[in-house]
Amino acid sequence: MEERLEKQMKFLLETDKMKTIGRQTYIADGSKKENDAEHSWSLALMCMLLAEYAEENIDVLRTMEMVLVHDLVEIDAGDTYAYDSQGNQTKKEREEKAADRIFHILPEDQAEFVRGLWEEFEKGETPEAKFANALDKVQPITLNDASGGKSWIEHDVDVTQVINRNKKTPEGSNTLWEYCRKLLMKNVEKGNLKSE
Amino acid sequence: MEERLEKQMKFLLETDKMKTIGRQTYIADGSKKENDAEHSWSLALMCMLLAEYAEENIDVLRTMEMVLVHDLVEIDAGDTYAYDSQGNQTKKEREEKAADRIFHILPEDQAEFVRGLWEEFEKGETPEAKFANALDKVQPITLNDASGGKSWIEHDVDVTQVINRNKKTPEGSNTLWEYCRKLLMKNVEKGNLKSE
Repeated sequence: MEERLEKQMKFLLETDKMKTIGRQTYIADGSKKENDAEHSWSLALMCMLLAEYAEENIDVLRTMEMVLVHDLVEIDAGDTYAYDSQGNQTKKEREEKAADRIFHILPEDQAEFVRGLWEEFEKGETPEAKFANALDKVQPITLNDASGGKSWIEHDVDVTQVINRNKKTPEGSNTLWEYCRKLLMKNVEKGNLKSE
Repeated sequence: MEERLEKQMKFLLETDKMKTIGRQTYIADGSKKENDAEHSWSLALMCMLLAEYAEENIDVLRTMEMVLVHDLVEIDAGDTYAYDSQGNQTKKEREEKAADRIFHILPEDQAEFVRGLWEEFEKGETPEAKFANALDKVQPITLNDASGGKSWIEHDVDVTQVINRNKKTPEGSNTLWEYCRKLLMKNVEKGNLKSE
């Protein structure tokens, strides 16, 4: 038991590094970029309050657990910006390697459990994974809108890139996608998002 | 429906401010102080992985929801340091006022739900609230230990203060309290925590 708890505590300290892994999205007031721990907390809160908009019935606990751990591999692999095509070529390999190391700090049963959650999220096939992926895409859109498109402008993003990246978002939640689509159009009008 | 979603999204943007509310505890590597969003994410992850150590059977989803929202009142009331006796005199009143404003950005049913979670956490009487409160106390102890007692040293904290503050922690989890007690003794020996 003592050894089990030691492993769990070691893992939890390892996950603390998420607080230093920066993302490209600014927080709502534009004062700083978000990190992975902050982002994951936001998704869990969204999951709790927006589950009613999931396209299919979801197990809220499992979805919440999924969003809490979905970015842990970035402790080793780093955050790959959505519109970085070079980084995205090597992303899968880097993240698989990270999963092997990080999750296996945990006792075996929990390592398998967390790896299962991460793989389910990556595959995006279950109702829970579809909704979790939708939240993961919706959240930065709402933050970008709130900060006046700060990260979109910084990266010269075109609205078609955002739309292409969100092809599967309606499968998770059509309501949330419709909400985001309106935000995107508004930001095109404002000039925060390019439109070919 | 559209009005309901607007309220939920407005609330979620409001909660984004948690990413700017600083706590006194340093993250594990000592590089910066933690904020409320990061702290809440850590507690949710601990809840997911350490639930087996709860003193009584707990509803993991409800406990997780509780830790996700337990510090939202600090958006208005600010973080009151555990060992700030003056700040703690006015804490309750400031937090009640904050709860009235912040939770009621949500649609009425969800405002009541989140307020219920927060009040349950504050009262600390249910098995879920006892465990959530235990995690809230255990987490900064593990971070302080990892950072070489950085925040304890900065605030000249005595081990009896930490022990007094943790009177109810064993009711949430005796196992986690025993783990922490050993960390505290180790830090007294190292001189990171004062001992009268």
